[in-house]
Amino acid sequence: MSTLPPDGSGPAGSPFVRACRRLPVPHTPVWFMRQAGRSLPEYRALRGDGSILAAIADPALAAEATLQPVRRYGVDAAILFSDIVVPVEAVGFGVDVVPGRGPVVERPFRSADDLARLRPLEPEVDAPYVAEAVRLAVAELAPSGVPLIGFAGAPFTVASYLVEGGPSRTFTRVKSLMHAEPDLWRALLDRLAAMAVAFLSAQVAAGAAAVQLFDSWAGWLAPYEYEQWVLPATRQVLAAAAALGVPTILFGVGTGELLGLMGTSGADVVGVDWRVPLDRARARVGVGRAVQGNLDPSLCLGPWPVTAAAARRVLDEAGTEPGHVFNLGHGVLPETDPGILAELVSLVHAEGRAGVTGADRAPVAG
Amino acid sequence: MSTLPPDGSGPAGSPFVRACRRLPVPHTPVWFMRQAGRSLPEYRALRGDGSILAAIADPALAAEATLQPVRRYGVDAAILFSDIVVPVEAVGFGVDVVPGRGPVVERPFRSADDLARLRPLEPEVDAPYVAEAVRLAVAELAPSGVPLIGFAGAPFTVASYLVEGGPSRTFTRVKSLMHAEPDLWRALLDRLAAMAVAFLSAQVAAGAAAVQLFDSWAGWLAPYEYEQWVLPATRQVLAAAAALGVPTILFGVGTGELLGLMGTSGADVVGVDWRVPLDRARARVGVGRAVQGNLDPSLCLGPWPVTAAAARRVLDEAGTEPGHVFNLGHGVLPETDPGILAELVSLVHAEGRAGVTGADRAPVAG
Repeated sequence: MSTLPPDGSGPAGSPFVRACRRLPVPHTPVWFMRQAGRSLPEYRALRGDGSILAAIADPALAAEATLQPVRRYGVDAAILFSDIVVPVEAVGFGVDVVPGRGPVVERPFRSADDLARLRPLEPEVDAPYVAEAVRLAVAELAPSGVPLIGFAGAPFTVASYLVEGGPSRTFTRVKSLMHAEPDLWRALLDRLAAMAVAFLSAQVAAGAAAVQLFDSWAGWLAPYEYEQWVLPATRQVLAAAAALGVPTILFGVGTGELLGLMGTSGADVVGVDWRVPLDRARARVGVGRAVQGNLDPSLCLGPWPVTAAAARRVLDEAGTEPGHVFNLGHGVLPETDPGILAELVSLVHAEGRAGVTGADRAPVAG
Repeated sequence: MSTLPPDGSGPAGSPFVRACRRLPVPHTPVWFMRQAGRSLPEYRALRGDGSILAAIADPALAAEATLQPVRRYGVDAAILFSDIVVPVEAVGFGVDVVPGRGPVVERPFRSADDLARLRPLEPEVDAPYVAEAVRLAVAELAPSGVPLIGFAGAPFTVASYLVEGGPSRTFTRVKSLMHAEPDLWRALLDRLAAMAVAFLSAQVAAGAAAVQLFDSWAGWLAPYEYEQWVLPATRQVLAAAAALGVPTILFGVGTGELLGLMGTSGADVVGVDWRVPLDRARARVGVGRAVQGNLDPSLCLGPWPVTAAAARRVLDEAGTEPGHVFNLGHGVLPETDPGILAELVSLVHAEGRAGVTGADRAPVAG
């Protein structure tokens, strides 16, 4: 662990947590969604050919995969190596993660009868390996002060897999359910919200210093659908997570039209994809919220001058006001060169200006 | 053709063309992207198992597929049965449309050498069946006054297939090309713009009364990328099409952040996907532009009360000012019940209020 960045302040005083809380920072913090994974050769060596759910269920392996990107890139936060379907799989709903395809559900959610298949999650009984992986990773990170981010799938996005039976491009079944059977839909989301809260609480109890809620596919909804049928359950989860004393992040792809609503979700930080310039995003989420993002992952394939120019544009659009966590606008693509991501961390640390102590305080662009 | 809606005014005076030009209309016009195709049993009977490019190259078959949805639904416009890759295929670039996958390119565009594979399109020599299909369909439509919409792929979206080699979810190669080799990128788009102009001109000369430019994947770009590397070529095509004297429509998916720029493209009408409420869309595209859209195609799977409620919401958001063409926010899904679309046309005709003569003139909502 000799390459972990030295920091004596502990996770709660880390640049990442301070930026989430819109406090001044010594440098702009940066981490990457999907930083642990297929883009790292050491990860592929660690994983071999086993299933991803089996890897997640191995605390030593999961902790190691969590730490690899911190060592490799010098990012300002680790994120637990896990998956958003772990809670539903752990209560026996019957979910597998198929390589190259994503989560696949053997018997999709179709009617009120299926609610019984979603009993409450008891993390320390149903998935004790999750808290154990967090404890192992947090212990290794402790000397450096680098925080660990816990996470869960937001109720809508998890529901989309359960209802569609797998990844979808149209979400026809899940939209049909929310429109045609709103009471059943709300009952489903209530169960998934409770499971997300239990999952996040276990991670925070084990040492996670922040949490991110992935509502990856919320951007396929119109604003009125999001507000009526998704935001209430999302708020429940975020309120419960905030009560644990850690900052909360809410992220989705294609959410330009939803950012105003997401700003009212209770999240401290709203994650933004690459389509919305961060100055626009800041205006939409409103004061009192930080933003996270939003370099296009496709532009991390290089060449480096392309990546650097695009990263500088993100930093410009983030402006100088506190409250920017640098990230990609979606997950790291598997074919990304790790060397580019390492250079990117250096660039962000050297040139980020949002809330950076002593940095130029020019007005935010745009 | 006995079920064609009677209208003595001819295509130029049709409700569809008038709405494109923001003139008062007797009823809100409606058509559906992908109205000709797999959702219609008579289309599946007509097509059989042949390739789609072979069907497009058969003028009688293409004209019949163009007319089927007009008879079935009573829509206010036909759209030519064709494909955005027809021009590049016709000059010999080597493109096939694979069922269930989409356009696939045998030798993708990789370097300046590939420009030579994109010689100028001579529609009456390279693809005479296109104008012939338009002529046949327009002749059949003439008694009803229903206009036919010609179309082309916008330079970026066609380029995305040529460069990626097929459908993509990340557009990494095409983004890399525009960022790293902007001169080559512009040369590629110039060729594709010229081909789109030739393709559209042939359709208008053969009787098309309006044209739509499909920039289906533009919404995967950030606004600065769109403005620098896509909008100039799009403007060229739209200016040339407008000079032919027909109204022009520009459509893409996920373009919420681009609507302001699309409003400056020269298009008379900006197509909007289901994510952006039409009142917001109207504000973004600016005065002097009509909007087209934007019912979520997933909500056309019914049950009918769900579809009807969502359609009424679209009509409310479109307001009462002239300049709304009702459509879906993306193409008709193959599993759609044609009966629902027929009911939808009736609802729009009965309840649409944008620029409808004698309708209530209350302020636009939102």
